[in-house]
This record gives sequence, C-alpha cells and structure tokens, in this order.
Amino acid sequence: MSAPATAALRDIQRPIQAELAGVADELHRIVAADFPRIAEISSHLLRAKGKLFRPTVLLLSHQATGGRDPRAVTLAATVELIHLATLVHDDSVDHSALRRGMPTVNALFSHQTAVIMGDYLYSRAIIELVRLDDLEPLRILSRVTNEMTVGEMRQLEAHDRLAFSEADYDLLIRAKTASLLSGACEVGALHAAPAEREALRRFGFYVGMAFQIADDLLDYTQTEAVTGKPCGLDLKEHKVTLPLIAALAGGELGREGRRRVETLMATPEPPDEMVQGVIRSVEAAGGLRYAQRRAQGLARQAEAELDAVAPSAARDALRDTIAYAVERDS
Amino acid sequence: MSAPATAALRDIQRPIQAELAGVADELHRIVAADFPRIAEISSHLLRAKGKLFRPTVLLLSHQATGGRDPRAVTLAATVELIHLATLVHDDSVDHSALRRGMPTVNALFSHQTAVIMGDYLYSRAIIELVRLDDLEPLRILSRVTNEMTVGEMRQLEAHDRLAFSEADYDLLIRAKTASLLSGACEVGALHAAPAEREALRRFGFYVGMAFQIADDLLDYTQTEAVTGKPCGLDLKEHKVTLPLIAALAGGELGREGRRRVETLMATPEPPDEMVQGVIRSVEAAGGLRYAQRRAQGLARQAEAELDAVAPSAARDALRDTIAYAVERDS
Repeated sequence: MSAPATAALRDIQRPIQAELAGVADELHRIVAADFPRIAEISSHLLRAKGKLFRPTVLLLSHQATGGRDPRAVTLAATVELIHLATLVHDDSVDHSALRRGMPTVNALFSHQTAVIMGDYLYSRAIIELVRLDDLEPLRILSRVTNEMTVGEMRQLEAHDRLAFSEADYDLLIRAKTASLLSGACEVGALHAAPAEREALRRFGFYVGMAFQIADDLLDYTQTEAVTGKPCGLDLKEHKVTLPLIAALAGGELGREGRRRVETLMATPEPPDEMVQGVIRSVEAAGGLRYAQRRAQGLARQAEAELDAVAPSAARDALRDTIAYAVERDS
Repeated sequence: MSAPATAALRDIQRPIQAELAGVADELHRIVAADFPRIAEISSHLLRAKGKLFRPTVLLLSHQATGGRDPRAVTLAATVELIHLATLVHDDSVDHSALRRGMPTVNALFSHQTAVIMGDYLYSRAIIELVRLDDLEPLRILSRVTNEMTVGEMRQLEAHDRLAFSEADYDLLIRAKTASLLSGACEVGALHAAPAEREALRRFGFYVGMAFQIADDLLDYTQTEAVTGKPCGLDLKEHKVTLPLIAALAGGELGREGRRRVETLMATPEPPDEMVQGVIRSVEAAGGLRYAQRRAQGLARQAEAELDAVAPSAARDALRDTIAYAVERDS
C-alpha cells in the first residue's frame, strides 16, 4: 500500500480538471432546494467532498474516446449524486455513524431524515438525466441503481453467515460497486464505437471489483485516522468480505483461528480485542494476500481492456485509476 | 360518509376493467426478481392489493381524451409502483405497523429491508418508464417523486407543531398526494391537446387534495375494522391535519379544548382516552365540518375542469372518482 495514493488521484484528474470543477458546480445546482432542512443536509453532504472517483472515470472515458460533449459534466454529476444517494441509504441501513470522517445523515439528523434525503437525491438525479433529453444514460443508470438495491439486500441477508462463498461475495461487490463504476465508464463512452464502449464498460467493471476488494482490505489494514471510519468495522458488524472468505476456505486458519471467527460471529457487539484477534488470524492464514492477488488479477484484466482505446493522456490517466483503485490507502 | 363507497369504485372502474387487469399483470412482471427475499416481499406487497386508484384515474384520463395506446397500461402500473415505493418508505419513516390491514414491510421484515425495498421498487419503475421510450412520462413522474420527498420532509419537520397552518398543510398534502394524482392524470392525457391535458392535470390535483383531506378526516371518524389502521393514529403520532388546524384557528375550541390538544402534543405516547378527548373537542369546535367543506369545494373545482373534456363513459367515471375521493369510508 503506497502512501502518496491521494496525490496520485490529483495527477490522474489533471486531464479533466476543468470538467471536475464543473461537476462540483453542477452538484450544487442539481440538489438546490427551497426547503431549508433539505438545503442544509445537501450542503453538509457536499461539504464532505468525496474523491469524485466515479465522475473521474466517466470524464476520462469520455475524453479517451474522443468525446467533447459538455453534457458529460452533468452526467458525471448525476452519477456522483446517485452514488451519494446510495451512501445515505446504506449508512442508514447499516446504522453507520461516520463517512469520509464526517457524521452521517442518520447520525447527525435521524434515520427518517436519511431515508427521505436519499430519495430526494436520487429523484433529483433522475430529473437531471431527463433534462439531458437522452434515454441512453437513463437506461444504463436506472439498471445500475436497481442492481445496487439487489446488492444491498444481498448484503443485509449475508450477515452472520460463515457459509458466504467467494461466488456470493463476487455477486455482492459486482452489484454494490462494480455496476456503478461500469455504468459510469459506459455512459462516458456512449458516443464511441460499440467496441470501445463495451471495452470501457468492462474496464469499469474490473476496476470496480478491484476497488471494492481493496476497500474491504483497508478495513483489515488501515486505521481510523486515515480512512475516516473505524478499522475492523466490517467484522464488528459481522460483514464477511474476501480476506475472511479466503482464510476460511484456504485451510490455513487452523482450529484455533476458526473458533475465533465463530466466537466473533456469535457475539452481538464484538469488542475491539476480539476483532483484532480475528484480523491477525486472517492475515496469518493468508487471507489478505489472497485478496490482494485477486485485486491485482482484476487490475490486469482492466488494463487489457484499454488496448481497445487509442493512446492519449486520458487513456494514461484511466490506466492510473487502476493502480489508484488497488493501492490507495483510504 | 356513504357506506357503498367501495362498490362505487368497482363501478367507476367498469370502462377500464380490462386495462386494470392488465395493470395487475404488469405489476407482477415489473417487480419480478431473482433474489428470493425481494420476490417474497414483492408478492407480499402485491397480495395486499390496493384499490389501484392512481392507475384508475390515469386510464380514465387516457380513455376520456380518446387515447388508445396500450402503453397506458404499463404507465398505470409504474405509477402504482411509485406509489407503492413511497408507501414502503413512508411506513418505515413513520414506524407504521399496518397498511391496508396487513403488516408493513418494516414490521414484517425490518426497517433496513423497507429502505432497500422502496429503492428497489422505485428503480424498477424507472427502468420500465425508460423501456417505454418516451421521456415525457419520465419528466412528469420524476418531478412528482421529488416533490413527494420534499413533502415527506415537511411532514417529518411538522410533528408537534401547533403553529402548523392551513397553508403549511396545503403545501404538505399537495406534495404528498395531489402531485402524484395530478401526474397520473397528466400522463394519461399526454397525447391530448394542451387544453385537455392541462385540465386533467388540474383535475388530478384537486381530486388529490380532496382525497387527502378525506383521508385525514377518516382518521377522526373511522374505526380500524374499516380502514385497516387504528383510528386517531395521526393524533397519537402528533400529526396535525386539517380538522385540528381548523379547530385551533376557528376560535370555537375554547380554553379547555386547547389545553387538551396541548397536553396530547406534550405526551410522547398519548393514551386512547386522551386521543378520543381531542377528537371530540375538534368535532365540537367544527373542525370536521370545516375540513368536509374544503374537500367539497375542491371537489367542485375538480368537476369544473372536466368541462374541457368531451362527454363519454370515461368522463362520467372521472366525475364519479371525485365523489369516491371525498365520500369513501376507507
């Protein structure tokens, strides 16, 4: 895990710097509301400025395929808005208190407010997509959003289940992360020839899978100070991700390690000590290494897809997003 | 309040009987899911068969303006689906346990499940609207859905507020109910001349306002056996609706009545006795009568809009929906 990953993202975004500034403006314009409480929450959400990773891949895909449509900026903003709406509902469903180092909507206001606010943001995104007068992005993004809800339901049903397999996990992260990143790349490349468009759709998919595996790894390896959320949170909430799945499947966990995992899963609110014990066992059993290798394999698949696109600064930046997705530290 | 209101709805639906059967089929088709839990909840929701009031006004508006587009059936199903998605989230936000006499999703499964399920239904509706390859219904219905979320936020912020005015109430029920009914009528009449289309949009708006006032009146007048939800529930939850607003504003409530209302609003879980006491005070102060008169005034405005439409069985049925909205007993 390399330290200057955040700086690297700034470099990656260089070819689309002006467009990204436009995305920030568009976000403010699109969520604008007369009702004071909604305006207040929107500005809270936009203050916790994300990395705009999804707008970044959309705009780079657009530029890399020769696109020069100013509507790409608005499309990028709606994709970020759909992402934000999902986060607001996810945090509410998960009872999360922190996101990007700031209090979540459910923590700061209420669970009810978070449900309504997520609906508000999502319907604003749809209104904006309709205004662009093109059914194609709507077709892609409504399918993606629906896939994400199925992923959320999978996640809800997957708690506490040591039987959760790598195939189950793949279905989950595909729905939860890869589908929106894949949709973002495809929407950016809508104007391109079918082969390029398809290649970028698959590129986004592989980057998304790798991105989520890296994210799940961070829960095992990083401290709260860096990620903005507590380390070991997934295990605390009995969420089974790839490192644990690999450790359980690999046979290197041993009787003692497996017992530790079972105890944690049977404990409603596992203490930090117990969580750290499982993290150590999973690492010793090669679970982290396995997950890292899978992320790297997906990274290579993503890279191969870029061969379909002509060389350019934007294509180079897309290549760099792969390393960013896999190697970032937050 | 007349007893045979439900029978009347069946009569109203006669000109569009075949289409309504199609709506039921479309609903099942559209919500179909591979994931077992989602399929289970969908069939629970569709089992609690609603009155299909929104599809009814959409299809009647379509027929009354000479429309014969088979896509109207699918449009009617998506409008019902948007309504269903809203109910699932509303019940979750309100912690309601019953809806249409059956347990709500949040009660039967969990709060989390309800949040995800509402998102699932809404995004399925959008996918279906995109499939119809026409931006106009999407434009109307995405605006309406967004308005509904603002209405929900208004409602959330309005708890416990004796200062809630009739103007505030109007804004609330416009967003909560009138906007979707208005949108349903407009979508049904999209193919018609602008004057007819606008008249039906306004017709839906007035019917919707009247419908919600009648609904809020039922909370004061009807028993659980008839409506499927407990009587006096709004007051129990400190929801301020028109009868109470009118009683408070009318000056006939007296010091004793006002004190009763204040006590109820200051009691976190008011007992039935206290709720019944306030209901009696509101009735004695003319609050119910005032609300009934407002509903009747809106009904007359709705009726006047139908003059823009040529006479037909569908137009007669639309006229009957006004009486249904105002006089139904559940």
